[in-house]
Amino acid sequence: MRATVMFGTGDVRIENVPDARLIEPTDALITVSRAAICGSDLWPYRGLEPFSETGRRMGHEAIGVVEAVGADVRTLKVGDVVAMPFAYSDGTCVFCHEGLHTSCIHGGFFGTGGAFGTVDVGGAQSEAVRVPQAEGTLFVLPGGQDDALMPSLLTLTDVMGTGHHAAVAAEVGPGKTAAVVGDGAVGLCGVIAARRLGAEQIILLGRHPERIALAREFGATDVVSERGEEAVVRVRELTDGFGVHSALECVGLEQSMLTALSIARPGGAVSRVGVPQDETIPASLPTFFHNLTVSGGPAPVRAYTEELLPDVLEGRIEPGRVFDRVVRLDEVPDGYRAMDEREAIKVMVEL
Amino acid sequence: MRATVMFGTGDVRIENVPDARLIEPTDALITVSRAAICGSDLWPYRGLEPFSETGRRMGHEAIGVVEAVGADVRTLKVGDVVAMPFAYSDGTCVFCHEGLHTSCIHGGFFGTGGAFGTVDVGGAQSEAVRVPQAEGTLFVLPGGQDDALMPSLLTLTDVMGTGHHAAVAAEVGPGKTAAVVGDGAVGLCGVIAARRLGAEQIILLGRHPERIALAREFGATDVVSERGEEAVVRVRELTDGFGVHSALECVGLEQSMLTALSIARPGGAVSRVGVPQDETIPASLPTFFHNLTVSGGPAPVRAYTEELLPDVLEGRIEPGRVFDRVVRLDEVPDGYRAMDEREAIKVMVEL
Repeated sequence: MRATVMFGTGDVRIENVPDARLIEPTDALITVSRAAICGSDLWPYRGLEPFSETGRRMGHEAIGVVEAVGADVRTLKVGDVVAMPFAYSDGTCVFCHEGLHTSCIHGGFFGTGGAFGTVDVGGAQSEAVRVPQAEGTLFVLPGGQDDALMPSLLTLTDVMGTGHHAAVAAEVGPGKTAAVVGDGAVGLCGVIAARRLGAEQIILLGRHPERIALAREFGATDVVSERGEEAVVRVRELTDGFGVHSALECVGLEQSMLTALSIARPGGAVSRVGVPQDETIPASLPTFFHNLTVSGGPAPVRAYTEELLPDVLEGRIEPGRVFDRVVRLDEVPDGYRAMDEREAIKVMVEL
Repeated sequence: MRATVMFGTGDVRIENVPDARLIEPTDALITVSRAAICGSDLWPYRGLEPFSETGRRMGHEAIGVVEAVGADVRTLKVGDVVAMPFAYSDGTCVFCHEGLHTSCIHGGFFGTGGAFGTVDVGGAQSEAVRVPQAEGTLFVLPGGQDDALMPSLLTLTDVMGTGHHAAVAAEVGPGKTAAVVGDGAVGLCGVIAARRLGAEQIILLGRHPERIALAREFGATDVVSERGEEAVVRVRELTDGFGVHSALECVGLEQSMLTALSIARPGGAVSRVGVPQDETIPASLPTFFHNLTVSGGPAPVRAYTEELLPDVLEGRIEPGRVFDRVVRLDEVPDGYRAMDEREAIKVMVEL
């Protein structure tokens, strides 16, 4: 089968690889119909993560059709249209029950890691993918969906769930003020989530006109395009001098984290959801003395499906609008280039 | 009047200084009857903070008697027995209304700082002290208290409120598991608070036999005396391999913060309440990938008075037992030495 493999900085190719197949009795095999390129795929593309000699299989967001299931899989059947979150999870362990599927003891990040596009599990930017812990991982999409809904449904496998996690971890709630640092696809979904959870004021920190325009349609009430200390001053001006209750850090760089910490008001909450460039939470006077809460991590998007799916199906939110380019599988390398050069916000792959 | 002044590393003296007096119409003047030496007073004593040439006035926990009030002070009268939290606050601003008195816009740490024992405001380890924002800061103790209750009442001005804040920020609740890193006075009060808030298992990380004994009386169910990675392994063993829901970091050093982050289970919360040696939250894989929440800061002890005072008055908690030495004002330098050398857990000053 054909699959996306990354060999080095900027070197991503479509290769012939061994067909995906069932291995464990809890596996399902799906034929991918739609996948996506993630902002986090750009980290290795830009040389910020190590490579293996044999290449790294890419992609961790997919919608597909179940082709085969292992002997222990009972709740899924061949032909089901399913969505595949970026991490697999059994759906039954203590952490899945607590809604933290990304720490599933049979998947997630508790032990050795249970995300797609890693050493043991293939990537979603390919013709097919083996899905471990299939019953817990996959969710079946209601039949007869219009193709127009597919982009938004695809966002539930990562980016919309991640934006929602940013808002939840930053304790967004009715009447509160929120700021979203970053106008990438996660940030834009963070705006959707903040509005959905009732934030009264939503300040987007971003600089790209077409992204800002989309953010305003999604619910951003204010835009700050300054950077660094100037951005902090501007956010304070917009919030009676205090800063925001909730700061959603949707970039993953040290500077953006510092900005998020600096624009939170005393007692406020700062979330981070993108894989951070540096795991240290940078020194910042306000973090301690202002009693800030810092939270976030890999989004348990599987946990959020029940809550977000109806809003997508009924058209109350349209996160699929973050996809502003569609490519075929053999065009995936150009999709990476387009995202890397900020020509595209987020790229969908149609197979 | 006589007051405690620190001039340099290990150099703390009782000096004659100008009498404390009313300056602002919102001030009160109190005669100190009891004060305390705080773990944070040891930071400058050990040379970890800069000194001014004229010395630094020490002490920020006191019980005293109101001697005089400014023209705007109506809810306090001369002769009231009052407790004085370590930071002053107006009690009326937006942050005080939210229960975050340490970020009061007329005190606290929002602007230039509003704690006792700083440049503008004298210290509590002295015969008298000027209390800014007196109506918001002081709380009147019910009359006719037995002297035996005074040590516990004194802890409400800092150490017990701080232990409570650690437990609240670490999201301790009924049935949860908690670990308290550090067996100092704050850690011991953290044990009291964790038990009071319903934690099912309370693991104390400490090494001093007499402190461990007190912690067990306060409610610690397990004790871990190993350090570093060995302590982490031991806590995991005690918690089904997962770690604790709530980790209370009550030391303030980078190593203890790393330990706290490492013993929290996925989705858990870590609080820090001591002035940290390093404000950076150290790099730790679990912090991001395990979706930990990091919270805490200077405890808004004034906010906690209403909740904790009845428990002290009715003897349900006895945080005053952390005072294991009592000195007179002229013996304060020896009190610092005793705490520095760990001869004493916490020292009370009786005037």
